[in-house]
This record gives sequence, C-alpha cells and structure tokens, in this order.
Amino acid sequence: MEAEKVKVFGLALSTCTARVLTALEEKGASYEVVNVNLQIGEHKQPTYLARNPFGQIPALEDGSLTIFESRAMARYVAKKYSSGTDLLRSGNPGEAAHVDVWLEAEAQHFNPPISTIVYHLVIVPIFGGVADEKVVEENTAKLEKVLDVYEERLSKSKYLAGDFFSLADLSHFPYTYYLMKTPKASLVTSRPHLKAWWEAVSSRPAFKKVAAGMTLGN
Amino acid sequence: MEAEKVKVFGLALSTCTARVLTALEEKGASYEVVNVNLQIGEHKQPTYLARNPFGQIPALEDGSLTIFESRAMARYVAKKYSSGTDLLRSGNPGEAAHVDVWLEAEAQHFNPPISTIVYHLVIVPIFGGVADEKVVEENTAKLEKVLDVYEERLSKSKYLAGDFFSLADLSHFPYTYYLMKTPKASLVTSRPHLKAWWEAVSSRPAFKKVAAGMTLGN
Repeated sequence: MEAEKVKVFGLALSTCTARVLTALEEKGASYEVVNVNLQIGEHKQPTYLARNPFGQIPALEDGSLTIFESRAMARYVAKKYSSGTDLLRSGNPGEAAHVDVWLEAEAQHFNPPISTIVYHLVIVPIFGGVADEKVVEENTAKLEKVLDVYEERLSKSKYLAGDFFSLADLSHFPYTYYLMKTPKASLVTSRPHLKAWWEAVSSRPAFKKVAAGMTLGN
Repeated sequence: MEAEKVKVFGLALSTCTARVLTALEEKGASYEVVNVNLQIGEHKQPTYLARNPFGQIPALEDGSLTIFESRAMARYVAKKYSSGTDLLRSGNPGEAAHVDVWLEAEAQHFNPPISTIVYHLVIVPIFGGVADEKVVEENTAKLEKVLDVYEERLSKSKYLAGDFFSLADLSHFPYTYYLMKTPKASLVTSRPHLKAWWEAVSSRPAFKKVAAGMTLGN
C-alpha cells in the first residue's frame, strides 16, 4: 500500500508555502498542494482555522497529523523522509546545533527586515499601492547589519551551518528569491561570499522547481 | 573523567539567558553562568563576538562547540541530555511536530508583542524612561489575539503541544514571568485555561530556581 501523499494547504507563490515545498523537493517527497483562496477569506473560515488557528497559510496534513508554521513544517518534512538531502544533520550533534543556530538567525534576524522590504517593494505595488520608502530604508539598514554577519560567516564556510547545505540555507530561500527581483538585490550581490552562497543555493534543482511556481507580480 | 560543564555566557535576569538555564535545569544538567558585562559593552567586543557575531546574549560553550540564539541553545540542551524531562518528544514524530509548531508560535506570534510590552513596562522605567503607551496598547491588542488562540488550544490539551510539558511551554516562560509582574498580567489571568497553564508551568522546580535569579527591577 502506497503511503498517502502529504498535503500542503497554501499557495505556491507564498514565501512560507515555498519554504515547505522546497523541503519536500529536497527530500524527493511526493506531495499535493491544496490552494487556499485568500481572496474569499478561506483562511479565516472554520475548516481552515481547524488546520491553523492563526488563520495563515500554509498548513500541512500527513494522514491524521495536521500542523502549521512553515518552519515547523519544514523541520517535520526534513525528519520524516530519510531520502534526499540530509537537511538537519541529526547524526552529528555539533553540525545539527549549527543548523539550528542559523535557522534561528533566519527567523529572528533575517526574516523581520527582509519580509518588510519584500512586502513594500513587491506586494504593495501589486495592489496598486506605493511602497513606504522610509520603512524600506529603515529595514534596509537593519538587513545590511544582518547580512554583514552573514558575509563574515560565509567567508569561513560555504553554507551557513558549515560546508554542507542544510535546512538553514533552505529557509532563507523564499524571501531572498523575491528580494533578488528588486533593486535591493545589490544587498546580496555587493557581498562576494553572500553572492556565491546565493548562486549555490538558487541553482539547486529543488529551488528551481519551487521558484517556477513563484510568479508573484507577473 | 567528569564531562566539562556547559558554559552559558549571559545574565541570569535576561529572558533569553533564562530560557536556556530553564532547559538546563529541566535536564538536571550541571552548568556555569559566565556573566557578560553589558554596561561596558563586553557583548560588542571581539572575544564575545567570536561567540555570537550578532553581539547579543546569551551564547553557549560545550567543549569545542560554541553556539548562540537562545532557542537553538535550548534545543541543543534538550537533545544533549537524556536525563530529566523529555522536552522534545523525539521518540514520537507526531508529538515532536506539535512541539515544533508551538515553539514557532512562540517565536513568530507570541514573542514580538510580549517582548515589546515587557520592554516598555519593565525595562524602560529601570533606566528612568517612560513607557510609550501607544506602543504598549498596540502590542497588547496583538498579544490578545495570540492569547485567544492559546486559550482555545489550552481548552483541548493541558500543555501547548499536548498533554505533556515540553520545550514549547518552557520557551514561553521568561517573558510571561515578567509580564505577570505588570498590570498586563490580566491578559493571562482573565483566560482560565491560560491561567491554569501558567500555574502549572510556573510551579515547576526548574522555573522557580531560574526565576529566583530574574531580579530585574528590584
């Protein structure tokens, strides 16, 4: 009997959905994306709220298990499948600890400014709005400081957690992908080690496949 | 030969240091706190920046391994020691997934508003400042929405990830502890399941021991 496919409730173009899909692709897992219609507020209706009480996409269903929070979902996927890329390095406590450190760096330091910049430069214009330049510049200054730390780190190891690709690198992909479509791409390209890291990360087949579905703003 | 003690560089009264110390206490681990003198900017000097390039407390040293980010450190501690409380439920993938979900809920939903409220109501006055009431009220409204989700969740299970205490509950402890010393404690006490959860969590010996060192504002 074939195992039931994992279901991801979300949208392929959403950054947080893309984080989970990339993990599934890296593991070579079979999965199904179930679109959530945000326009009609499907994510605020009881059926969806039972999957994620915060009313945000994505959520994941694996048989009788339902979970939310994209970073927890990506971790679950990384653990569930022994196939594909070893994303958590669980066999080596030191390596695994560094993966966790840079996953937290993404969640705590990188995500707040980059998600704000992408929101203003990519999302707002889609709805006919104008980016708040002051907010963009304040968050650019914050992101610069974070990326200076990343540049230093990546001068010592090819990837964030060490000389191996991991879930920590993967988790940075979706927002960086959208940032690279804006004039703020120079934040990455002006830092040589960060630029080399992004070239390595974004050339992975899993990323290319997921990126093909991230057609926001087209 | 006795194993070297884990060293935590930080301050016992700091919320993020307290997160790590509570994990160590729950595991019954032997550890040493090495105070970092923030007043003289020790956290911005090269010796400390080699431990945490973001220049924030805490950091952890275990033999030749040095890591930072309190949530990654707490996870490392939870994995390292087989003694004490099973904080990650690694033996049960479904339970472990729920622990990760509520760890992310803490980091993404709970922490931003509560840390802002505690900053304004607890930290600012220590330095002779006055809380920005508008910011406090904006973040109170955000935290209310988050706590409504928690209240609903805790009406179904005793703890956040299920009917077992886990790292997810633990991770909420330090900021909730300080919140409970302010008039905003009513955010917790007005929600019966949340109140019962807090009573269970804060009565644990590990928490009492760490809380005894959290003498901020006295």
